[in-house]
Amino acid sequence: MSKKASIVGAGLVGSLWAIYMAKKGYKVDVFERRPDMRRADISAGKSINLALSDRGLKALEGAGIGADIRNMAIPMKGRIMHDNKGNLTFQPYGKEGQAILSISRGGLNAKLMDLAESHEGVNFHFNAQCLKVDIAKAEAKFRMDGKESLVKSDLLFGTDGAFSAVRKSMMKTERFNYSQEFIEHGYKELSIPANEDGSHKLDKNALHIWPRGQFMLIALPNLDGSFTCTLFLPYEDERYGFNQLSNDDAVMGFFEEMFPDVIPLMPNLLDDFNENPTSSLVIIRCFPWTRGGKVALMGDSSHAIVPFYGQGMNAGFEDCTILNQFMEKYGEDWGSIFEAYEEERKPNADAIADLAMQNFVEMRDLTADPDFLLRKKIERKFSEDYPSLWMPLYEQVTFSHIPYAEANDRGKMQRAVMDEIMKLDQIESRWDSEEVMAELRRRAESLPRL
Amino acid sequence: MSKKASIVGAGLVGSLWAIYMAKKGYKVDVFERRPDMRRADISAGKSINLALSDRGLKALEGAGIGADIRNMAIPMKGRIMHDNKGNLTFQPYGKEGQAILSISRGGLNAKLMDLAESHEGVNFHFNAQCLKVDIAKAEAKFRMDGKESLVKSDLLFGTDGAFSAVRKSMMKTERFNYSQEFIEHGYKELSIPANEDGSHKLDKNALHIWPRGQFMLIALPNLDGSFTCTLFLPYEDERYGFNQLSNDDAVMGFFEEMFPDVIPLMPNLLDDFNENPTSSLVIIRCFPWTRGGKVALMGDSSHAIVPFYGQGMNAGFEDCTILNQFMEKYGEDWGSIFEAYEEERKPNADAIADLAMQNFVEMRDLTADPDFLLRKKIERKFSEDYPSLWMPLYEQVTFSHIPYAEANDRGKMQRAVMDEIMKLDQIESRWDSEEVMAELRRRAESLPRL
Repeated sequence: MSKKASIVGAGLVGSLWAIYMAKKGYKVDVFERRPDMRRADISAGKSINLALSDRGLKALEGAGIGADIRNMAIPMKGRIMHDNKGNLTFQPYGKEGQAILSISRGGLNAKLMDLAESHEGVNFHFNAQCLKVDIAKAEAKFRMDGKESLVKSDLLFGTDGAFSAVRKSMMKTERFNYSQEFIEHGYKELSIPANEDGSHKLDKNALHIWPRGQFMLIALPNLDGSFTCTLFLPYEDERYGFNQLSNDDAVMGFFEEMFPDVIPLMPNLLDDFNENPTSSLVIIRCFPWTRGGKVALMGDSSHAIVPFYGQGMNAGFEDCTILNQFMEKYGEDWGSIFEAYEEERKPNADAIADLAMQNFVEMRDLTADPDFLLRKKIERKFSEDYPSLWMPLYEQVTFSHIPYAEANDRGKMQRAVMDEIMKLDQIESRWDSEEVMAELRRRAESLPRL
Repeated sequence: MSKKASIVGAGLVGSLWAIYMAKKGYKVDVFERRPDMRRADISAGKSINLALSDRGLKALEGAGIGADIRNMAIPMKGRIMHDNKGNLTFQPYGKEGQAILSISRGGLNAKLMDLAESHEGVNFHFNAQCLKVDIAKAEAKFRMDGKESLVKSDLLFGTDGAFSAVRKSMMKTERFNYSQEFIEHGYKELSIPANEDGSHKLDKNALHIWPRGQFMLIALPNLDGSFTCTLFLPYEDERYGFNQLSNDDAVMGFFEEMFPDVIPLMPNLLDDFNENPTSSLVIIRCFPWTRGGKVALMGDSSHAIVPFYGQGMNAGFEDCTILNQFMEKYGEDWGSIFEAYEEERKPNADAIADLAMQNFVEMRDLTADPDFLLRKKIERKFSEDYPSLWMPLYEQVTFSHIPYAEANDRGKMQRAVMDEIMKLDQIESRWDSEEVMAELRRRAESLPRL
């Protein structure tokens, strides 16, 4: 008889992991607190679209469903920065042919559930609220259809997000380290609808950013011609904070001052602003992620991060890749699998949490800084000439499978090298000269190899 | 009619704060989960004795009860270090006449409750478990005598320790930052009984330390002639961890190797070791500490630290001093009082949390290091000659009311100065020479004044 695995949370990571476990021969049940999103119109309370990149794609391919997902997405080849006067600057994310994929969270989630259900025989239970978990026994109590029921399994996975019920039960076990840290910014979703002919009002193959120092607006394209926009702004600030935007005049005045080119693109600005909630952003860290070879946390339940590197989903999907690798190594020795998994993933989760906060500063501030843009140009040219010596940090994170912690470490060394290069005489005019490239090469050769 | 203040937790901070609030004219009720410790023999699950120092004393004096407490304590003038061969080294904590006070936790707690009850009319409710708190309304639900009851108050204070129920309810409010971090060491209490004539088996006016690098044993004197000892040891280690001490032979072998001079002093070593639990050590940080001018956390519920600076209780008592100062400044404007309190205290709580971890390294490791001992001697001599220029970090923390964060910052600058001094030629022999003192003076004069 096949062993039984229960997964708490039918979000992106839970639905994908269900496919992995089913393919390995486990009998898989997924329990989800909400109704079936494929039947009800619910947004899961989170952002409408996401950036899928190489780590996420690899995990989808590992489950044999990469092709099913790719054609649901719009490639974004780089950032387009919008300044106060409406001037645009394009900055590619990677090399020719590289792109991150804008994809609908709901569409992707529904597709993963469909594939799990119809191809792999996974059983989904909706409106099933996890009340508590006996961590030592991997027994979970759910409220389903108004009554409580106890579910016993050989293995239990908590993929129930940043405010995980499984983790809450784990917190009551001995010496469990935990932190939740809310950043000072909140976010609000807005939208740019499609043109009447269904086309996009802005270049659809880019992620648009309106960087304004302490805050920013971004826009990601949807397949239907619209863009989903997100305003990231401090909750409280003396000049520019959500606290200052308490009436329509204040909102319009703020947009006229800061995002004048956006106003004609957003006919529903005030309605969106008033109707959509202001949501918070939290960083969750904890350890251990597993207990007794029976229970494991995956995705946001173990490592929720801020969205500024577009890596939240990708990191969660990479958990599946890594956990699957250890299943292949250790068979059914779940004690060893879980130990190896949490040892491998924890430093990488911490690194992407830090990188995501750093990238917030880059997106909202540095993308408008000439010095920063010059650095990026120099790095790009050099890495094209010497790909074995230099991969810009963004590419390491987004277009490679280098562990996040290693990328973070190498990124710091590269920044120190670039600090020196930027001090060279007349770097603004000589940046692509042979001497500058030779100097950069000399320094790059002393770094650990990729 | 006087306003009503409820205090959750009748521990040290709760009992002291009850006195402060009663003196200000509030009707004070204290709710405690445990039975009345004055009637039952319970240890509150925590260490048996504590080091009371200047910050704690100031808070007791602020409540008019300093003298009541002082004569319950034994002054400890410094550390006595015991090496592997039984050699002793004495190191004073401060200047002549300065000492920290070894005091019984239970005795102090009982005394504070007595004073609150009999002199100030505070009402204590025992066996009252806080189930949850409606933070916005300052309404708390308790289970008392088998039934639930709702308590409404104008103000509610959570002094219910590191695993606070009040904080647990606060965690459900918006954007509450929180972390709990368990260190790798656990602790176990042991004891050195009095001699038959009631005298102490070791010098009673000192804190005894057996520093052994990654771990240590300490002993604090009790009034009855005994010492309470605490072994701090990693939970898991390849050589020296609680995991290695699973039978009597292993325990005896460990003590024979590491603490041979202690064995004849501990006739009940094996019984104590087997009967007393191995307890964990946690660092709790959170913010905010207050909500809506109605609810506030104090003491360990807002900032639990490790015990290695002897400042846990002192920091909690200092919360009372500071909160009382803001009551005197803002009257009954509790919104302003609480805002000023958390702004003032949070950085200081973070600083003492860091300092306490650093002092663990100092106690278990550096106290056996000749270089470290020389530094201390140089600092001591210089600070005696130039008290306005230099107060050693330990004295700033223990014998002053300098905010912890300021002490921490100045401590770092002083360490940098001492790093330079220790590089001087032949410092071992010349350490008290005029030239060395002149050089130190030159450097000390560039630091911010005390």
